[in-house]
Amino acid sequence: MRRAMDPSQFRAEFPVLEHHAYLNAGTDGPAPRRAIDAASARMRFELENGRAGHEHFDAIIALMQRRRELLAGLLGCAPEEVALTHSTTDGVNIVLGGLDIQPGDELLTSDEEHPGLLAPLAAARDRRGAVIRQAPFAELAGAVTEKTRLVATSHVSWVNGQVVDAVGLRATGVPVLLDGAQGIGALPVSVGELGCDFYAASGQKWLCGADGTGCLYVNRERLDDIEPRWYGYSTVVDSAEPLTSPLQPDARRLDLGLLASSSGAWSLAALELFEEAGWDWVHERGTSLSATLADMLAERGHDVQPRGRSTLVSWRDDDCEATSGRLGENGVVVRFLPGRGLVRASVGAWNDESDLERLVGLLG
Amino acid sequence: MRRAMDPSQFRAEFPVLEHHAYLNAGTDGPAPRRAIDAASARMRFELENGRAGHEHFDAIIALMQRRRELLAGLLGCAPEEVALTHSTTDGVNIVLGGLDIQPGDELLTSDEEHPGLLAPLAAARDRRGAVIRQAPFAELAGAVTEKTRLVATSHVSWVNGQVVDAVGLRATGVPVLLDGAQGIGALPVSVGELGCDFYAASGQKWLCGADGTGCLYVNRERLDDIEPRWYGYSTVVDSAEPLTSPLQPDARRLDLGLLASSSGAWSLAALELFEEAGWDWVHERGTSLSATLADMLAERGHDVQPRGRSTLVSWRDDDCEATSGRLGENGVVVRFLPGRGLVRASVGAWNDESDLERLVGLLG
Repeated sequence: MRRAMDPSQFRAEFPVLEHHAYLNAGTDGPAPRRAIDAASARMRFELENGRAGHEHFDAIIALMQRRRELLAGLLGCAPEEVALTHSTTDGVNIVLGGLDIQPGDELLTSDEEHPGLLAPLAAARDRRGAVIRQAPFAELAGAVTEKTRLVATSHVSWVNGQVVDAVGLRATGVPVLLDGAQGIGALPVSVGELGCDFYAASGQKWLCGADGTGCLYVNRERLDDIEPRWYGYSTVVDSAEPLTSPLQPDARRLDLGLLASSSGAWSLAALELFEEAGWDWVHERGTSLSATLADMLAERGHDVQPRGRSTLVSWRDDDCEATSGRLGENGVVVRFLPGRGLVRASVGAWNDESDLERLVGLLG
Repeated sequence: MRRAMDPSQFRAEFPVLEHHAYLNAGTDGPAPRRAIDAASARMRFELENGRAGHEHFDAIIALMQRRRELLAGLLGCAPEEVALTHSTTDGVNIVLGGLDIQPGDELLTSDEEHPGLLAPLAAARDRRGAVIRQAPFAELAGAVTEKTRLVATSHVSWVNGQVVDAVGLRATGVPVLLDGAQGIGALPVSVGELGCDFYAASGQKWLCGADGTGCLYVNRERLDDIEPRWYGYSTVVDSAEPLTSPLQPDARRLDLGLLASSSGAWSLAALELFEEAGWDWVHERGTSLSATLADMLAERGHDVQPRGRSTLVSWRDDDCEATSGRLGENGVVVRFLPGRGLVRASVGAWNDESDLERLVGLLG
């Protein structure tokens, strides 16, 4: 049986926590020391040895393939169902750009979506005549109609940490694309249980990987429904003969090119740290600490927003920008949500009670 | 007046040259020490301070904007005409995917193109019914017909270093997309003189930047002809309101998202090194050394392929893979071109006569 991770030992992997109550993984996760060491070592190697030949490309591809395998394990799917991207936004673009969307097709989304999902929806509307309909996040399943071609929404709302009604959505039978930016790494993700066809996610948030990394799950039954819009030598089986070669038989056909080896090394080392700690432990600790923070804030009279079993905690603040700034000046890193009057804290397994107390103490 | 760069001082910026005759920038350029130092420093900063708030994103955007300016200077265009991508292939996909290509439209290309150009051409054929016609690289201008919708070809052939007949192509009046992977950084590029509408290029080759970096020039008169296929918060003016915001008014609408700051810092530091040395000097020295190598090889009876004023030198070898391998084992880094029976050396301003002599000495 796996020995439980020692929380202080895990926390010590993240140097930013020595000085900051870093509560902002919903933007970008804290970098693990071993990830930066791995990326630095990789860059030094290239500095001394150049970037050439099979050795160089094999190293890049091995980093990508290992990362794909670990991500598949985390998502509960096969590696052949995972494409590697640069961002959640990339994944959403691949799906919305690749589906055969016709004028008048309705794309249902919520009123709590991130611009990274809304922008590709705007493209589907402006370029292909899709109709975008927005409904409250908690009421999406009930808003599905027979015109609904696809539901595109968050797994976890970036606004307040509510979790999508996956059971309700699945019951509608309409295909579902989930924006997993605040899901993957933060709480258990099983694409089978979620019943989604597509899950687009980020590498730099709850996976603590490099900026510019992401992944996309595509159910193998839906792969042929997505026409690749980006063609490179990784899209086809015979990279030397793209004019005559068939497409890759699996989700690699949706990869968006080779990732820099330093970013690959960073992201893989971060994933391996979580594997070592145990994802169950990571998920349980992050969501529990988040619930604790929500309770602490509510007890002190803060207007905590309705949330689910996630790692985001948002509360109302009439001057959220000033509050966020004041917290930052005092070493407590959160963010505010412009236009929504909310401050948001992101709580991960790397945090501890001292971080929560610093935040609550400063808020008063 | 700028003092001429001391070649040995410039060479000392590239540690790989201490042990290797690195002649492979046509794949990936040698990394400058200051670029790796800049990327490492940036990663250490994020390790200690996190990645949060305006500070983090402003740093990323400042790195991108400065890089855009320097690239525009190098290309002879305005910064507003430069989109930042991850690769040459990205740029080709943006152009071929964004133009209004109709079934039967002829896309003219050469028989010496890289898979990174051929793959997006295959997509235009398979998905949109375009007709791909191939002609010899040196005879492209004469192959243009009234059916030709676009010429998509290399600025410099990756096979042998021949340079495109820009004058001839321009005289046809047909729009031209150049694959600048072996052009930018290697020899002078003036998009005005080349008369091209689009120029897609790589950051990791002759610019010695990070893997996963590239740029795309789009003539401002042609910007509205390219429909963006990727929508993110950088595509629109008001990133918080993508459903209602207009597109960016310039080539930033074709950017493919934020680049990791470490890659941005690496790439910018490399560009600044070249600026310091002076691009004219860099171009002159690289192309001159290349011509010297071609002469040395020819004098020894090697079958050097027809080439132009570029930085690539290819010669016939019945067992090019074995030769390339043997050279590599002896510290001389070149590549072979599978299926073409060629070995190719890439010669940059960082090289010197000793590198050329090592290569020629080993070849016998």
